[in-house]
Amino acid sequence: MSGLLDREPVVVAAGVDVLADAVAAQAVEVVRVDWRPPEPGTDAQLAAVAGDHRRTDANARAVERMLAATAELVAVRPASAALGLERGQLLHAGPPITWERASGPLRGALVGALLLEDLAPTPEEAERMLAAGDIELEPCHHRGAVGPMAGVVSPSMWVVELRDEVHDGTSWCTLNEGLGKVLRYGAYGPEVIERLRWMNAVLGPALADAVEAHGPVDVRAIISQMVQMGDEGHNRNRAGTLMLLRDLLPDLALSRPSTVVAEVARFIGGNDHFFLNLGMPACKLATAAAHGIPGSTVVTTMARNGTDFGIRVSGTGDSWFTAPANTPEGLFLGAYGPDDANPDIGDSAITETAGIGGFVMATAPAIVRFVGGSVPDALRTTRRMYEITLTENGAFAIPALEFRGAPTGIDVAAVVRTGVLPQINTGMAGRVAGTGQVGAGLVTPPMACFTQALEALDALALG
Amino acid sequence: MSGLLDREPVVVAAGVDVLADAVAAQAVEVVRVDWRPPEPGTDAQLAAVAGDHRRTDANARAVERMLAATAELVAVRPASAALGLERGQLLHAGPPITWERASGPLRGALVGALLLEDLAPTPEEAERMLAAGDIELEPCHHRGAVGPMAGVVSPSMWVVELRDEVHDGTSWCTLNEGLGKVLRYGAYGPEVIERLRWMNAVLGPALADAVEAHGPVDVRAIISQMVQMGDEGHNRNRAGTLMLLRDLLPDLALSRPSTVVAEVARFIGGNDHFFLNLGMPACKLATAAAHGIPGSTVVTTMARNGTDFGIRVSGTGDSWFTAPANTPEGLFLGAYGPDDANPDIGDSAITETAGIGGFVMATAPAIVRFVGGSVPDALRTTRRMYEITLTENGAFAIPALEFRGAPTGIDVAAVVRTGVLPQINTGMAGRVAGTGQVGAGLVTPPMACFTQALEALDALALG
Repeated sequence: MSGLLDREPVVVAAGVDVLADAVAAQAVEVVRVDWRPPEPGTDAQLAAVAGDHRRTDANARAVERMLAATAELVAVRPASAALGLERGQLLHAGPPITWERASGPLRGALVGALLLEDLAPTPEEAERMLAAGDIELEPCHHRGAVGPMAGVVSPSMWVVELRDEVHDGTSWCTLNEGLGKVLRYGAYGPEVIERLRWMNAVLGPALADAVEAHGPVDVRAIISQMVQMGDEGHNRNRAGTLMLLRDLLPDLALSRPSTVVAEVARFIGGNDHFFLNLGMPACKLATAAAHGIPGSTVVTTMARNGTDFGIRVSGTGDSWFTAPANTPEGLFLGAYGPDDANPDIGDSAITETAGIGGFVMATAPAIVRFVGGSVPDALRTTRRMYEITLTENGAFAIPALEFRGAPTGIDVAAVVRTGVLPQINTGMAGRVAGTGQVGAGLVTPPMACFTQALEALDALALG
Repeated sequence: MSGLLDREPVVVAAGVDVLADAVAAQAVEVVRVDWRPPEPGTDAQLAAVAGDHRRTDANARAVERMLAATAELVAVRPASAALGLERGQLLHAGPPITWERASGPLRGALVGALLLEDLAPTPEEAERMLAAGDIELEPCHHRGAVGPMAGVVSPSMWVVELRDEVHDGTSWCTLNEGLGKVLRYGAYGPEVIERLRWMNAVLGPALADAVEAHGPVDVRAIISQMVQMGDEGHNRNRAGTLMLLRDLLPDLALSRPSTVVAEVARFIGGNDHFFLNLGMPACKLATAAAHGIPGSTVVTTMARNGTDFGIRVSGTGDSWFTAPANTPEGLFLGAYGPDDANPDIGDSAITETAGIGGFVMATAPAIVRFVGGSVPDALRTTRRMYEITLTENGAFAIPALEFRGAPTGIDVAAVVRTGVLPQINTGMAGRVAGTGQVGAGLVTPPMACFTQALEALDALALG
């Protein structure tokens, strides 16, 4: 006890600043803890969920499965065959939505998909069909797939097929088109459709044969490497793309005429984001493995359709908890500005749900710098994510944090209790259909998704 | 002045610990500066060199030229054509040396080169010829080339040719063979010679045509990117290799049958060090641009032949300042240990001379971790290098240090004054000829190289 009196006092203040300020005014050093009370009105729910005797084990099992999931690229196939997608059906990113409530970029991408499928001769006719309800819309997530930005998948598009042999899981994603005027950002001009036709006719089949000749590609191992190489796996996928290209090129060279090999190598090599569409289904496999465990408060989906942000939670089955999506803040391309940006869109927040993307910002300070932040901001962001996650993924180790594992397994209760929201890196789509990409930046989900999920967990909680 | 009395004192102690210890014993915080007196007997020389009226301008010009140098891969050619190397002539790494004084790995590589050139039918006959002085030995640096490890170049080997158009400079380096049992580590078994023959017959000509079809490849731009991707450009060249492969593959695909394309893609893709042999001549171009400026104390060469470490300095012309090479410390492959390691060997310290490699350790903490250090060690190493360098290279920005430029332009006077030696990352060759690689680690040059250089600068100093 005497030690307490012999040395300088250590003062730690949590909560409102007035207490810390008073101590500081007396020339005493004070450590300020950024503590906030839980979201208003959630005390009883938090207590009930915390008291659920299944919770600890259920969450341990959920994150254990999330970390144990593998992800191998095993095939590249048309969505019709891989996903059973039929003519007149389209998949989209985020929670379920109707044409009436769909944002500009999602509408643009749906229109483009009908043009690609020759289901409509003009954009106007496509819009009419969509408005009339002639086309069946369904979230990618409902079929085990994920789609970046608008995330529209039509039957003729080729998709990568990834397998998690440990949990017998399968996930799919389309091939990445590149940046700028592309379908996933809501553009549907002739150059967009022409590129998609080339991808269907040339790129998809070439990759399919290369993957078949190569055998399974360990996508999880590539993610492991890329987070050591400045990629956070959401807004930056440069090293990942290069490693994929390296792995597939020898077999690609042996299966196609040289002009096609050169064309495909240029297309993939010229698009630093190509790997995103493999990282996403790998993350989907990890989160899917953690889904459906009664009593677990682990978030297994975060997805946006451009209008709503939706989450799903391991212990609450297939229910979506949705709220209006925020609009990202960041840097704009060319003459575009904040008024041009659509609210947050895409299934790509599956990366953060699995512990990479914004959660490993510390490994990719170039991203934060790109949107006006600094290296310490990047480290702080990742450190903050440990407050709302249940485990660390040693397979995705962050060099700048002494190779600490990525913060993984978002706990709904921790988000509501701390007020700390998951940090998401994202692209920004133009608000108006047909525009394409207008920028890239940072965004968080609305808190309402988490308070709704907590309410549902409370309703299901056992003593 | 009153401010000085009102606040807590700030105590900074430099030099011997006794002063700092006394203050600390009185419970006063003390910042310890790791200061050491200059090397014994160098005071007058340091004063004379510091007083040389040309020094400031000469050093400014030297580092300005070092930073302004470009490096484009413009051709791949046999050394006979590129370097005018004739039958019976061999180049080697480091300062000049004779067969008698040559270390095991250098001897092994020289023997292997004679077997490759069909100048000797057996290793024994090759040794006899070398011992008899039938073969002319010359440092790579004397012809504007650089060679990793033993650095042996024979006429039939294909070399990359890099150009610095700004200063009309040209530099060359052989193609990287991969790791393990390879000529540059002193191995010369049948598999080594067979690989070299394939490189001469297939790899070199294929890359030559690819580069010609592609046009100049901006090697400096790749280095700029790779230091953002966990590569320090000496012991780690993974991202650099992938980017080179991406840039050349489309044209490679168009110029060769698919089996050759696949073979070359596998060879380069399977060797994370392939880019080292492009980074080295790029660094040579930068340092060569800074060479030969009267009054400049900037180091323009650091190179080792396995026996001696040699440096050259901008203001002292072509003189080498040599001393016995240290033996690296680090991690050993398989059952190898410290007794198996040869002293430091290779021209690859040109990377540190140009400000990358060990100087940007902060960007590649995986390297330090590999040899038993930590992330803070990596940051400290780079920070220490700012103490002995004259400028920072903004083109090689280090993310972990808030994108501070690489510490560039080693000042002989600063090394002698501070006692801080350049940090070099390196591979370790087996001491016995024919062994190959035994490990990788860290090493420093002997201080004697710098004190000798200072002496020469003193002799040339103007008032």
